[in-house]
Amino acid sequence: MMQKAKALDAADPLAHLRDAFFLPEGVIYFDGNSLGAMPKAALAEVDETMQQEWARDQITSWNKAGWFDLPTRYGDMLAPVIGAAPGEVVVCDSTSLNLFKALFAGLGLRPGRKVILAEASSFPTDLYMIEGVLAARPGLEMQLAENLLEAIDERVAVVLLNHVDYRSGALADVAAITARAHEMGAVVIWDLCHSAGVMPVGLNAHRVDLAVGCSYKYLNGGPGSPAYIYCAKRHLPEVQQPLSGWWGHEAPFAFAPGFSPDAGIRKFLSGTQPILSFRAMQAGLALIAAQDMATLRAKSQSLTALFIELVQARVPELELASPRAAQMRGSQVSFRHPEAYAIVQALISRGVIGDFRMPDLLRFGFSPLYLSHMDIVNAVQILHEIMADGLWKEPRFQARQAVT
Amino acid sequence: MMQKAKALDAADPLAHLRDAFFLPEGVIYFDGNSLGAMPKAALAEVDETMQQEWARDQITSWNKAGWFDLPTRYGDMLAPVIGAAPGEVVVCDSTSLNLFKALFAGLGLRPGRKVILAEASSFPTDLYMIEGVLAARPGLEMQLAENLLEAIDERVAVVLLNHVDYRSGALADVAAITARAHEMGAVVIWDLCHSAGVMPVGLNAHRVDLAVGCSYKYLNGGPGSPAYIYCAKRHLPEVQQPLSGWWGHEAPFAFAPGFSPDAGIRKFLSGTQPILSFRAMQAGLALIAAQDMATLRAKSQSLTALFIELVQARVPELELASPRAAQMRGSQVSFRHPEAYAIVQALISRGVIGDFRMPDLLRFGFSPLYLSHMDIVNAVQILHEIMADGLWKEPRFQARQAVT
Repeated sequence: MMQKAKALDAADPLAHLRDAFFLPEGVIYFDGNSLGAMPKAALAEVDETMQQEWARDQITSWNKAGWFDLPTRYGDMLAPVIGAAPGEVVVCDSTSLNLFKALFAGLGLRPGRKVILAEASSFPTDLYMIEGVLAARPGLEMQLAENLLEAIDERVAVVLLNHVDYRSGALADVAAITARAHEMGAVVIWDLCHSAGVMPVGLNAHRVDLAVGCSYKYLNGGPGSPAYIYCAKRHLPEVQQPLSGWWGHEAPFAFAPGFSPDAGIRKFLSGTQPILSFRAMQAGLALIAAQDMATLRAKSQSLTALFIELVQARVPELELASPRAAQMRGSQVSFRHPEAYAIVQALISRGVIGDFRMPDLLRFGFSPLYLSHMDIVNAVQILHEIMADGLWKEPRFQARQAVT
Repeated sequence: MMQKAKALDAADPLAHLRDAFFLPEGVIYFDGNSLGAMPKAALAEVDETMQQEWARDQITSWNKAGWFDLPTRYGDMLAPVIGAAPGEVVVCDSTSLNLFKALFAGLGLRPGRKVILAEASSFPTDLYMIEGVLAARPGLEMQLAENLLEAIDERVAVVLLNHVDYRSGALADVAAITARAHEMGAVVIWDLCHSAGVMPVGLNAHRVDLAVGCSYKYLNGGPGSPAYIYCAKRHLPEVQQPLSGWWGHEAPFAFAPGFSPDAGIRKFLSGTQPILSFRAMQAGLALIAAQDMATLRAKSQSLTALFIELVQARVPELELASPRAAQMRGSQVSFRHPEAYAIVQALISRGVIGDFRMPDLLRFGFSPLYLSHMDIVNAVQILHEIMADGLWKEPRFQARQAVT
């Protein structure tokens, strides 16, 4: 198996990218789907922002260093990664806040309808933001369903769903669900948090209306780096969102008393953006934007397939909780075990960094930018040892802490 | 006059703080009210965040480096600066977004009332966010007034106003307006963007209901550093806001499908926060939290008084656009001139950094942390030369650029 992994690594067209990241000694990192590893080039970007842009150029950096253009410039860099066109993506705020904007934008496009439809198994903050929209605008209704394809009907204004399920890693069918939503006259919002940067998304190809996502997972933007929002060009002239701060104004420096939104994607901006967190994400964004998404997807599938094969062979007491067919899953594999929490803690103590997800999931994310097939072999060896030795039974791995 | 300035500097109890900031050679910086100068200690904080927290500790930093606690920890550091108690302030998002939360929070406390009252001369984004609230929740009404004390009546649910006028620097009477609002049964929201960090605010002393502000001006948090929101403890149990993301949940790591807000100030959090921009603000926050606000205010008044005195003596063609009485103005002085734009550009070319504000204002902000009285003497000398030589008439100072 080691021979096979070495051969796969030798043939890996992305292998050279590993050097672009800071990867700590003794760590095999399967949490790129929570916080991506640091691109080495981010250090210089942040240093420049601190030492030159803030310290020396101070307020003049808004023009001189182009701070004012960062949200749209980064949006245009990200656009090809998710299959969007320039002018359809802006980087700003958090995913939660962009969901709020996208939900209101979608509702505004379907003024006669009252229902927001989402997955019962959705990433929770998506549902929390729907609740927020319902609190802000009385008279709306949230409907949750297991099978969205069946649940979309002519009462639905907006369908909100996750491209990749954060627990199982199951991939949703963007083409089919978007087409079905349009057939029923609904607007669709895709949450790309767990897919952007590891596979083609094809927003324009599938005529997606709106999308949101974060940049700190597979886009390697840094802790809490800004999120993004996509709006199809055909909707931009009429779409509106209520978080209407100065940066979304058509003339933000006119200091006019009345709000008049920008005609383009900048209308989705609100207040002042965290410039330092922006500049930290530039290196990761440049790196991902230079890749071919199909190549990333192929390596991601190869990594996850090898991981499943090895775990099932060597640690059969773990039950696969992700789709077996590679084309049905994202860049993530989950296994089920009643002692998942303690096993994840034991793995972390041995340098294998994954996630625990309630109630019984071990979750592993695979960044094709910096993981190798030999990483998989080594990680499964450690997992095997932990299970064989019963290391996870030690009391130090049982005490629960908050984990993100 | 130079003797007087030197004597004032020699007696300045805050003079030693100048060394804590990076101040570029040849620059006299009057834009601390737009983007505060960089505290030298911020470099080490950001370096630690990049090299250790992100690069080496990766996802474990959410617990290990306390990222999860930053919004409330920084809120507690800021609380005494604005006269609040621990647990009443949280750092997050932008001022615009926090205004949206505060407006809905205030409306929720006065469910029978429909009117949001604000100043006709308000900082524009405050009015834009009211428009956003009106767009989200049909049936509300915005009312603008010149004299808020007179305009507050029993129809008003929420009064939103600026502590310091961003154009004239005029200081509003927090005690009188808050008392009047309460007398009429209204909730009051103060925007502290242009006052926090240069004077006592006394939120609790005046029984203020809600407040918001940014941290990148006099708090020296860095470009676009996160904003904050204050809610009086007496309102926390019942108050609600609709930007209900995961971080405001009472159990954010339970991944529960339904939203249940935190019982305390954390209910004002929404999505994931930009950690790097947070960590950059820690140095400035620590510095300001260690000061006595009355001492800062006294120096601020001394600086602005000297500036007005010198400009009126040496550049009489500029018309004072700020209150003459020190107790009536914030830490800012504005002058009016038909060619204000070109004069500000000429000043910048000579290293005196101030702002132009439409249509005819030269605006100067005074940080008592790093400005000296001799800075004032030197800046007015340069201003005098520019006006005497007509330097501002050169074509290069006439072409307009966006200025923040």
